[in-house]
Amino acid sequence: MRIAILGNGHIGAGLARAWAGKGHDVVFGTRRPDSDEIHALCTRLSGEVGAKVRAASIAAAISDAEIVTLAVPFGVLTEVLGATGSLDGKIVIDCTNAVTRGPQGMSLVYGHTTSAAEEIQKLLPKAHVFKSFNAQGAENLANPVYEGVPAANFFCGDDAAGRSVVAGLVRDVGFEPVDAGPLVNARLLEPMMLLWMASSRAFGTRDIAFNVLRR
Amino acid sequence: MRIAILGNGHIGAGLARAWAGKGHDVVFGTRRPDSDEIHALCTRLSGEVGAKVRAASIAAAISDAEIVTLAVPFGVLTEVLGATGSLDGKIVIDCTNAVTRGPQGMSLVYGHTTSAAEEIQKLLPKAHVFKSFNAQGAENLANPVYEGVPAANFFCGDDAAGRSVVAGLVRDVGFEPVDAGPLVNARLLEPMMLLWMASSRAFGTRDIAFNVLRR
Repeated sequence: MRIAILGNGHIGAGLARAWAGKGHDVVFGTRRPDSDEIHALCTRLSGEVGAKVRAASIAAAISDAEIVTLAVPFGVLTEVLGATGSLDGKIVIDCTNAVTRGPQGMSLVYGHTTSAAEEIQKLLPKAHVFKSFNAQGAENLANPVYEGVPAANFFCGDDAAGRSVVAGLVRDVGFEPVDAGPLVNARLLEPMMLLWMASSRAFGTRDIAFNVLRR
Repeated sequence: MRIAILGNGHIGAGLARAWAGKGHDVVFGTRRPDSDEIHALCTRLSGEVGAKVRAASIAAAISDAEIVTLAVPFGVLTEVLGATGSLDGKIVIDCTNAVTRGPQGMSLVYGHTTSAAEEIQKLLPKAHVFKSFNAQGAENLANPVYEGVPAANFFCGDDAAGRSVVAGLVRDVGFEPVDAGPLVNARLLEPMMLLWMASSRAFGTRDIAFNVLRR
């Protein structure tokens, strides 16, 4: 599939590596497609996976894409979405974590009565917004299989046709996709990032991931 | 330890069975300790585990207990807490799910800026409130080990001395305890009940449980 990734940090780069390695056509949408940093990243990823990873302006990357992945810091998301052009009809995977840091530590900006993903859906009423890839470390994206057991990656969204596409993209990274239902359930998935951090503290390592056991 | 369990549904009964089987002194605190239903439950559990499980009035059960487990429906919790007598200094494990059913399905009563456990802590300022056992099916309490892998049971609370006690009680049920930090993190744990339900729908079985993978 043709996938635009907005954001070239650990999550964006990790998804690009995984998806390009599975044969998807991956392009970073960025405000500085010609920068040395982006060029070096694309060269490195292309070398690692043996497939071309490109960069383009945000609007150019998105115009051809079937899938748009939001992996920018939440604080710049509104600005970035202002530069995308139309996302109507596209599948948008929201990987962001809308967090703020206060005296009690990190907390979510949205929750309970809404979620970041629902707020994004409001901004993009004709896009098919899904939430996923928000509750793991970047390390997990590179290596999501633990002694033969794939970590779970929960996703949710409202578009019937899109969910099998998203499930496939989750699986392409190496995770087991878990369909957590409608987009309103992003209210359940977004807290998991902070639970991942708390669990990471409990076990003293970032090399942890959630899983759903069954018999 | 001396454990009072308020609530004799699936969760209360499942915890009673597990803890009595591990040698803890378990008593149900109930408004009808002499009812046929409670008598039958205690007889059945005592027979299953080969140790006495008793019932007493709520106040009598609690007065001797070191641990008080809240496993009643959230709707009657305020009424039940009005009958307990003092819980000062006791460890209180809140297993409740404060949920309401609306047109979009089940949702949490509290979240994001507070949680049911924090609301309970406000009602019981001198008790040591912990959240746990809220995100599994009753089936998991009877059999929380999946092919040799214990399911995770997250807990959180503010009392330093109590957390090793709670971790031990979680372990006694057969789960792996995961210390999710301070009580404020009940805001992260309480949504997991609905995520458990969504995951159950995704896999078509209630015989599922969360786990934290690591290498």
